[in-house]
Amino acid sequence: MDRTLDWNDGAIVAIDQCALPAEYRMIRLDTVDALIAALQRLAIRGAPAIGVAGGLGVALAAFAHPGDAAAVRADAARLAAARPTAVNLDWGVRRALARLPEGPDAVLAEALVMVDEDERVNRAAGKRTADLLAERYGDRPLRLLTHCNAGALATVAWGTALGAVRELAAAGRVESVLATETRPLRQGARLTVWELAAEGIPHMLCVDSAGPAAIGAGLIDAVIVGADRVAANGDVANKVGTYALACAAARSGVPFLVVAPESTIDAATPTGAQIVIEQRDAAEVTDWAGELATVPGTRVYNPAFDVTPAELVTAVVTELRLYP
Amino acid sequence: MDRTLDWNDGAIVAIDQCALPAEYRMIRLDTVDALIAALQRLAIRGAPAIGVAGGLGVALAAFAHPGDAAAVRADAARLAAARPTAVNLDWGVRRALARLPEGPDAVLAEALVMVDEDERVNRAAGKRTADLLAERYGDRPLRLLTHCNAGALATVAWGTALGAVRELAAAGRVESVLATETRPLRQGARLTVWELAAEGIPHMLCVDSAGPAAIGAGLIDAVIVGADRVAANGDVANKVGTYALACAAARSGVPFLVVAPESTIDAATPTGAQIVIEQRDAAEVTDWAGELATVPGTRVYNPAFDVTPAELVTAVVTELRLYP
Repeated sequence: MDRTLDWNDGAIVAIDQCALPAEYRMIRLDTVDALIAALQRLAIRGAPAIGVAGGLGVALAAFAHPGDAAAVRADAARLAAARPTAVNLDWGVRRALARLPEGPDAVLAEALVMVDEDERVNRAAGKRTADLLAERYGDRPLRLLTHCNAGALATVAWGTALGAVRELAAAGRVESVLATETRPLRQGARLTVWELAAEGIPHMLCVDSAGPAAIGAGLIDAVIVGADRVAANGDVANKVGTYALACAAARSGVPFLVVAPESTIDAATPTGAQIVIEQRDAAEVTDWAGELATVPGTRVYNPAFDVTPAELVTAVVTELRLYP
Repeated sequence: MDRTLDWNDGAIVAIDQCALPAEYRMIRLDTVDALIAALQRLAIRGAPAIGVAGGLGVALAAFAHPGDAAAVRADAARLAAARPTAVNLDWGVRRALARLPEGPDAVLAEALVMVDEDERVNRAAGKRTADLLAERYGDRPLRLLTHCNAGALATVAWGTALGAVRELAAAGRVESVLATETRPLRQGARLTVWELAAEGIPHMLCVDSAGPAAIGAGLIDAVIVGADRVAANGDVANKVGTYALACAAARSGVPFLVVAPESTIDAATPTGAQIVIEQRDAAEVTDWAGELATVPGTRVYNPAFDVTPAELVTAVVTELRLYP
């Protein structure tokens, strides 16, 4: 797979993740408003990907408002607020914005460094994850479980959790991957399965609640997920459902590994209790193929993420280290 | 609500649970084959309901084959095997079949006793559940969570877990009920929400994986679910997703109550490890409103139930006692 997100001739180009797997379609975003809309409908999603998109978005703003730093900063602030939970978005925006005094080309150059870095960072974290699992299991093929999509699609290339799976698969160390559907928007069924099928890695799909059940039934050797924000104490915010998997893994003594770049670690947030959890639209849960599929007027609790306490996490694996 | 399942003029009549909540429609089943088909597509579902349906089905067979006990027993065996996990089906079939030597009218009379008993049994278990929660919480209104549908629809009337919720609500002791969607067939979104709305009990809907997250976030005072089979040691088979909720509840010290009739306890099954878990069709997971919504050919792990070890269960509450 090529880069899922890049810069081309004055615009951001990205795979439209809402269209997969039915359709592989690229979108072209040439304004900050278009980027914000794409982030909010999850056409671009995944913490590392939205971090890089944030940096590229500041470049869009810088070229749109040459010499008007206030306008660029206003756009950057709106962009950083497009989604609250993943710290990477704010990180990417701030990193690119720091070059604004040098002009739009410098902003873009910084964002392009982020694009280039991403695959290297992911490969390093994936390698470290594979090494960690070898300490416990040696070289035997493993039965893995992953949740949501922390693959190439969630990054620029390679992926975090799925990058580790690719690393293991390349060494013949994957027996199978159980991919959870990931309600409400089914990133597992649509995106992770699509990536695994493309790579020829053996896999099965299950509903989210069957993931903890599979762990409890002794069918899983390790759980590998990504993260949207890691608090200073090691608490992990990730796609809702991560906590249930971590509880089940802890109870069964199954390694629970979080693979994430350093940019996902938020030293300014002491614990998970301070992480803002995005609440999303009720229709994501109530509707089925566009039709209401419950009682009209039903109220919905729809957190996009949950917080897994550090004590349930075997390790947060970054490109540099195990954290904390 | 009237009885969701009954006998009328030589046939079983039941609410078609597949049609809810869009349509409230009664189905009329006058052959064992029609009943088996209704059980397998989950038009009639819920352990107590399928137990009673099993008894009524034996009456259908007895009237269809007067004087031919072998034919009735063959029908009864097929009926008992229609779904493997809930022990109530086998219980209901055996209980009605025991009267076969006395003739079809005796079989029907026994099945009708089961119909009549069901609501009384459920009300007694619900009352005991409410009393148990009063020991911990007194009379304060509670934030409850339930999974799947263990309501009137899953029984003949009143319900098991939702019967306890009704009991608490009648006493002003329910602040809110969080109902999990219950993938793949969404019995929570379609059936539990429908029952709660009809009763005017405050509720919210969430995706399954948000249930453990809500418990972990301190938003739930008690989890109340039904059961499809309780092993002799107290291990509980129930709708897939129950185990994840039990893990989260145990970790947060939240009571995890299983409300089930005595007929759900299977003394012949020593532990949960011996319970046969029904695996269902892949299309339940892969399809969305009739369309394939993942990569073609995706293999699926689709257990209908999971097993929660007794150590995670605060109490199994029956009409007679706390078990074990």
